[in-house]
Amino acid sequence: MRLTHNFLKIETGEGICIYNITPQIQELVEKHGIRQGNVTVISQHTTTALTINEAEERLLEDIKTYLKKLAPPEDRYLHNDLHLRDVPEDEPINAHSHLMAMTMGTTETIPILNGKLALGTWQSVLLLELDGPRTRKVLVQFWGE
Amino acid sequence: MRLTHNFLKIETGEGICIYNITPQIQELVEKHGIRQGNVTVISQHTTTALTINEAEERLLEDIKTYLKKLAPPEDRYLHNDLHLRDVPEDEPINAHSHLMAMTMGTTETIPILNGKLALGTWQSVLLLELDGPRTRKVLVQFWGE
Amino acid sequence: MRLTHNFLKIETGEGICIYNITPQIQELVEKHGIRQGNVTVISQHTTTALTINEAEERLLEDIKTYLKKLAPPEDRYLHNDLHLRDVPEDEPINAHSHLMAMTMGTTETIPILNGKLALGTWQSVLLLELDGPRTRKVLVQFWGE
Repeated sequence: MRLTHNFLKIETGEGICIYNITPQIQELVEKHGIRQGNVTVISQHTTTALTINEAEERLLEDIKTYLKKLAPPEDRYLHNDLHLRDVPEDEPINAHSHLMAMTMGTTETIPILNGKLALGTWQSVLLLELDGPRTRKVLVQFWGE
Repeated sequence: MRLTHNFLKIETGEGICIYNITPQIQELVEKHGIRQGNVTVISQHTTTALTINEAEERLLEDIKTYLKKLAPPEDRYLHNDLHLRDVPEDEPINAHSHLMAMTMGTTETIPILNGKLALGTWQSVLLLELDGPRTRKVLVQFWGE
Repeated sequence: MRLTHNFLKIETGEGICIYNITPQIQELVEKHGIRQGNVTVISQHTTTALTINEAEERLLEDIKTYLKKLAPPEDRYLHNDLHLRDVPEDEPINAHSHLMAMTMGTTETIPILNGKLALGTWQSVLLLELDGPRTRKVLVQFWGE
């Protein structure tokens, strides 16, 4: 049994953007030669999320609309009162991004069977940028044989 | 340390239905003779979810009502414009099911202690069908000794 | 490779309260001497949740407001009809707490790299009490070398 890891570095776009990171993870499974095991993925940020679903272009737009309905960026949030917090002046106004991130979650653990991520036909691992643009780091930990 | 897995096959009912799959998982823990370890469960679909909570009949109805409030099936979603997508004519109209699935999540990792799933007294592993009826596959990966 | 676990016991406050349990988990990583591996955390209750985000005081208040907007405590829920369920008279009226718990999730798996929880700069593991006050148990399972 081997344990190893990689970091994916992703340059994200403006506002809410969604990236299908399944190909990068699958490529690493093959590079490490893991046939049976699993992978734990964690996005190391508080305004991004990971989810597993279909990478269909129009659905990705629906996800953005849905998240903005759940946690409207224009609502009033205490976290956005920068003058009451000990932060730099250019601190982003992003309480809604934090709430969206918690709703969707920031980690996923996925089994590997016969050298493949054990996802269903329509499942992809999606990274949700919720307060871009930024440089984001996603840790992918592989374990198996 | 052993690594093994099974697939649960579940024939689901109409619309949103909730199934307590804890007994099947616990039975497999015992069959594999795992005393200490953990289990990773993933529902291999984009319109189902897994959650851990109480399998109380009336609460299960509240969950359905709650999910329909979060992502109303009758709302307008881009994913539902089948004529703008390259899909068969009988493709289901189910953007809301995808959004519900992402909100609840599709994987769970649960420790096994002394041959038992380490759940609290009132906790059960619930499979949420969000666009039934279908035949669904849940992958259960066991690891331990 | 070693597999071990601990229980955190947490006495929570009234209503919705949020606790940063990262220091306790990191301390256990060090006590067990795990350099590379991971930790699976599960709160063994149906009216608590675990999430990974920023432990900023004002954001924690925003989380409470957000959860009450998603699942308003004053809404009508079938689970709250105690007279229709076979429960003690002092059973709590807490359907909203269950729904909040499922939305945020009750487990997290986090890699350990070089003896540290592999969290980003602003990430903390937060325990959400959603129906306090209570005595809560959080299981933390460590695996690694």
